[in-house]
Amino acid sequence: MQTYDISRSQALYARAQEVIPGGIFGHYGYSVREDGPKFFSRAEGAHFWDVDGNDYIDYMCAYGPMILGYRHPAIEAAVEAEQRHGNTVSLAAPIMVELAETLVETVAAADWALFGKNGGDATGLAVMVARAATGRAKIVKVDGGYHGVAPWMREGFPGAIPADLEQVLKVPWNDADAFEQLISDHAGEIACFISSPYHHPVFADNELPAPGYWARMEALCRANGIVLIVDDVRSGFRLHPAGSNVAYGFTPDLICFGKAIGNGHPLAALVGTDALKDAAKDVYFTGTQFFNAAPMAAAKATLDELGKMDAVGRMTDLGTKLSDGLVKLAGQRGYELIASGIPAMPYYRLANVSQRTHFAWIDECVKRGVYMLGYHNHFLSTAHTEADLQRTWEVADAAFEALGEPELAPAAAAG
Amino acid sequence: MQTYDISRSQALYARAQEVIPGGIFGHYGYSVREDGPKFFSRAEGAHFWDVDGNDYIDYMCAYGPMILGYRHPAIEAAVEAEQRHGNTVSLAAPIMVELAETLVETVAAADWALFGKNGGDATGLAVMVARAATGRAKIVKVDGGYHGVAPWMREGFPGAIPADLEQVLKVPWNDADAFEQLISDHAGEIACFISSPYHHPVFADNELPAPGYWARMEALCRANGIVLIVDDVRSGFRLHPAGSNVAYGFTPDLICFGKAIGNGHPLAALVGTDALKDAAKDVYFTGTQFFNAAPMAAAKATLDELGKMDAVGRMTDLGTKLSDGLVKLAGQRGYELIASGIPAMPYYRLANVSQRTHFAWIDECVKRGVYMLGYHNHFLSTAHTEADLQRTWEVADAAFEALGEPELAPAAAAG
Repeated sequence: MQTYDISRSQALYARAQEVIPGGIFGHYGYSVREDGPKFFSRAEGAHFWDVDGNDYIDYMCAYGPMILGYRHPAIEAAVEAEQRHGNTVSLAAPIMVELAETLVETVAAADWALFGKNGGDATGLAVMVARAATGRAKIVKVDGGYHGVAPWMREGFPGAIPADLEQVLKVPWNDADAFEQLISDHAGEIACFISSPYHHPVFADNELPAPGYWARMEALCRANGIVLIVDDVRSGFRLHPAGSNVAYGFTPDLICFGKAIGNGHPLAALVGTDALKDAAKDVYFTGTQFFNAAPMAAAKATLDELGKMDAVGRMTDLGTKLSDGLVKLAGQRGYELIASGIPAMPYYRLANVSQRTHFAWIDECVKRGVYMLGYHNHFLSTAHTEADLQRTWEVADAAFEALGEPELAPAAAAG
Repeated sequence: MQTYDISRSQALYARAQEVIPGGIFGHYGYSVREDGPKFFSRAEGAHFWDVDGNDYIDYMCAYGPMILGYRHPAIEAAVEAEQRHGNTVSLAAPIMVELAETLVETVAAADWALFGKNGGDATGLAVMVARAATGRAKIVKVDGGYHGVAPWMREGFPGAIPADLEQVLKVPWNDADAFEQLISDHAGEIACFISSPYHHPVFADNELPAPGYWARMEALCRANGIVLIVDDVRSGFRLHPAGSNVAYGFTPDLICFGKAIGNGHPLAALVGTDALKDAAKDVYFTGTQFFNAAPMAAAKATLDELGKMDAVGRMTDLGTKLSDGLVKLAGQRGYELIASGIPAMPYYRLANVSQRTHFAWIDECVKRGVYMLGYHNHFLSTAHTEADLQRTWEVADAAFEALGEPELAPAAAAG
């Protein structure tokens, strides 16, 4: 391999630590690896280049937003055209109405839409709408589910206080019995159940819904007046174009979208059914930047582009091939690689070695130009190519070769 | 006056109501007037045009973000150049470091910066940092102060629950005695005091700090280990370039910026002192869109442009002239106009007539091409001109003429 130079990233990171707590914060800071790249210089298609000029095939897709490829011509043209008229102005932009109409046409469960910037804006609003509609306070979420950084989500994190969590109840994933028990224990108190359509925690294999799980959860919500909220921020438009719930055969009351909806331009949306439209109108939801026109143009163009092709089919096919190839070549090197979650968002874990070895393999891939993370699901885009997959397999194999024979870890193998 | 046609706005608003709860939501929805424009088509300098082609001198400046004029060439060029490299990518962008360095150089109280999208991201983070640093839960805020739409701010609004507000204590504006009493009543429980640098509520005259108020508030915070948070989201960069607190001679621990920082491109920032850097590092604060590079380039360019001129001086001068002229011509028509707040952000109230008449005057101004709001402070920008002021006075006078002789309302006059 070529010499792997990240000296510019390191120098910039040292400067960053002077003026930003942690140097790089949030999930971007969390994913910083000592020997990995820290800052990008440019991005195009399914690749980005770091500030040292290293080229990476990107399987993080900016943690989801990039779905059509970086700098997609149709999206960038829509953004630039809208910006020429103005972005944030004292009135709303017509594109807001067009985007809401497009979402209502595209998303099966959507009769209306409201807009924010981040997924957390949408999940926070969803909970407030559910509380306004039901007059109840309690939220039920899945243990290990992530719905943003609002204090009610921040169990055990500095900055959250016990009162933030008093109204939050938890059930294990795929456990409708536990939900039924909670409903019984808190009769008439539960405003909503919020969950991703399948379970994609960090640091753990991702889990699909068990047969019958969602039908039963939906029925329990309906029978008990509980608002069913799907957090489709991460998986939206990568499992089904009309909402991930359609793939699993159920209908929520509210769906939260973000990430891929704008192909990298800042937008989130809450969509819902007519039954909740009045409650959604009553909740005062706003932000200085919620009315930016350019990201709405990006989202409209993204939905239009996705609709022109079988985007989910393409990403599913690419992800299936990627994972199958990686599992096979890992096996040939004596490593047991587990791929979980949906094909377009694969989570990987080396199951017969330590977590340290798993991370070392990821590091070896990164320094060879394949950008992955050790503890988080990955993302495919429609811009990834067969050539990218081929190169990824070569890199992954070379990374295993660099690690040498696996030191088997029975504890890790138990998983 | 020309015929005032808003038929395209009305038609679009009807479509909007089908797919968006309320048609237009949040503060944009709140400010919709039956006979006023609802959607813009383009914006340039201190003007915007609605979808019917009507031209407005804009004194709302998108509720603050527009400070250098819409479509400012240097800002738009910076945004477009950054977007060509990528906006939201799997790594952070170097511009984030440059922007943090610029804020630390520009803002007197800033040793570091963190970034979000909306002012509410910054105020929410500020409270979490204060709680993490102090191990205390209670927030003190000023009665009528606005710091975003998080549930802890939403007293009496649908969607908020009583538990959201249990940790929130309130003091009247300019009342350090009340704060001292609260500290005594809740010894060791108060994490922070959060306030705008001066009081700019809606539906009420804005109030400047009384002499000695901030010095005493700062001393009370210091003596009691309470984190002092300035919410400079609305007033930032319109009162003092180094932070509004500098104008009032005190030093907070944390300052929240948003709105004007990016001249209409979506960015918010929390800045703070070194004493809170570790606490800020510990709080997990993130969002998909917090790392967008283009808005950071907009903010860097905006701070650079503001630094090249006496922007505060210019906006203060324009605002003073605007208000003096309006007060004078109102008086000549028998109306008592009160202008309050800082000159660059004037709040207007017709004091000797009913609120209904005040709103009618605003409506008459709007339909003649001067965009103002009846219940909210206004904003000047560096792009407003003497010609804009001249035209505004003509319009305002014509609007009074259209109203006719004032029907004096003694109750309203009492204020």
